[in-house]
Amino acid sequence: MIEPSSSRPLSDAALDRLFREARTHNAWRDEPVPETTLRALADLMKMGPTSANCCPARVVFVVSRQAKARLEPHLSAGNRAKTMAAPVTAIVGYDMRFYEKLDRLFPHEPEAPSWFNSSQEKIRANATRNGALQVAYLILAARSLGLDCGPMTGFDAPGVTKAFFEGTAVEADVLVNLGHGDPSGVKPRLPRFSFEEFCAIA
Amino acid sequence: MIEPSSSRPLSDAALDRLFREARTHNAWRDEPVPETTLRALADLMKMGPTSANCCPARVVFVVSRQAKARLEPHLSAGNRAKTMAAPVTAIVGYDMRFYEKLDRLFPHEPEAPSWFNSSQEKIRANATRNGALQVAYLILAARSLGLDCGPMTGFDAPGVTKAFFEGTAVEADVLVNLGHGDPSGVKPRLPRFSFEEFCAIA
Repeated sequence: MIEPSSSRPLSDAALDRLFREARTHNAWRDEPVPETTLRALADLMKMGPTSANCCPARVVFVVSRQAKARLEPHLSAGNRAKTMAAPVTAIVGYDMRFYEKLDRLFPHEPEAPSWFNSSQEKIRANATRNGALQVAYLILAARSLGLDCGPMTGFDAPGVTKAFFEGTAVEADVLVNLGHGDPSGVKPRLPRFSFEEFCAIA
Repeated sequence: MIEPSSSRPLSDAALDRLFREARTHNAWRDEPVPETTLRALADLMKMGPTSANCCPARVVFVVSRQAKARLEPHLSAGNRAKTMAAPVTAIVGYDMRFYEKLDRLFPHEPEAPSWFNSSQEKIRANATRNGALQVAYLILAARSLGLDCGPMTGFDAPGVTKAFFEGTAVEADVLVNLGHGDPSGVKPRLPRFSFEEFCAIA
């Protein structure tokens, strides 16, 4: 069923949770994230829009001690301790052969792969643009579910790709620690641009 | 003030609005979006996390008939009529000189520009990754404020860059129509992957 659109904003509490008071977390309470929550998270993030529904993001939720140990050597020094302490680290990669799945995701248009796969440059641009959209959907879906996030790009991406996506066309791009954050590890809020510094109305 | 994290999810109505029932809109009610709403939207989207707070997205909200006319020739045929009918079209571009603003956005670390500007490839990868995250923040912030969205990549990006960002280092990447959608223009929901098709737990 399509909901009629509504001009009422979400509650202030929801806007705070998603955007205004949400913060990147660096310390974690010792509280596991159940698999049901990870599945609910995936079910929300996958609904966000991508170009021709191409959905290039692939996610490995690193939970076990063994998998964390495989991840550890590829983390930058500043991201190591906090990532090892996080209950879950989501490795988000982008499938560089995403266009092969369009028969499943965009079934009414058999020509859809040709919109993307005419050059390696185009494949990569679409995988990274749409994959990054999906990273942001994951972050905001996690916050929607009451989880805290610690997204990171400080890691050896080829190393993580080899450790977790070998034999596939998926390339790791972003890590997101997930769990219940300890507010004592949150750094002071950094400045943002004023409206005029990054927006215009034409 | 830092809010303590909470394990309670947002309400089902909020999850529906953001993810589950939200849809890409193609037809628009004749109802303007006030400038106060566009400013509230910018204030929410800018809070989303980016690498070292680099915030590369720049937005032109195209509202006037004159600015819409400048946009029109660069739209793909399938996106033309709906974009001309939308109350607002946000042009999101990424500033390829974003690292020059880190003294303002990441002031405690004078070395921060060097994390990004060591090569054109690195600049571009970071601008596009983080800029696309901000596109998704814009989409979900708009939905949070009760607006409907119609994001698109079907347009001549160099043409839009020239028409709206000439003389800057900003490159247009995504358009997002904004307004109050007419549900009659919404297409059937496309399939999504099952958990096992795009996720794993390790």
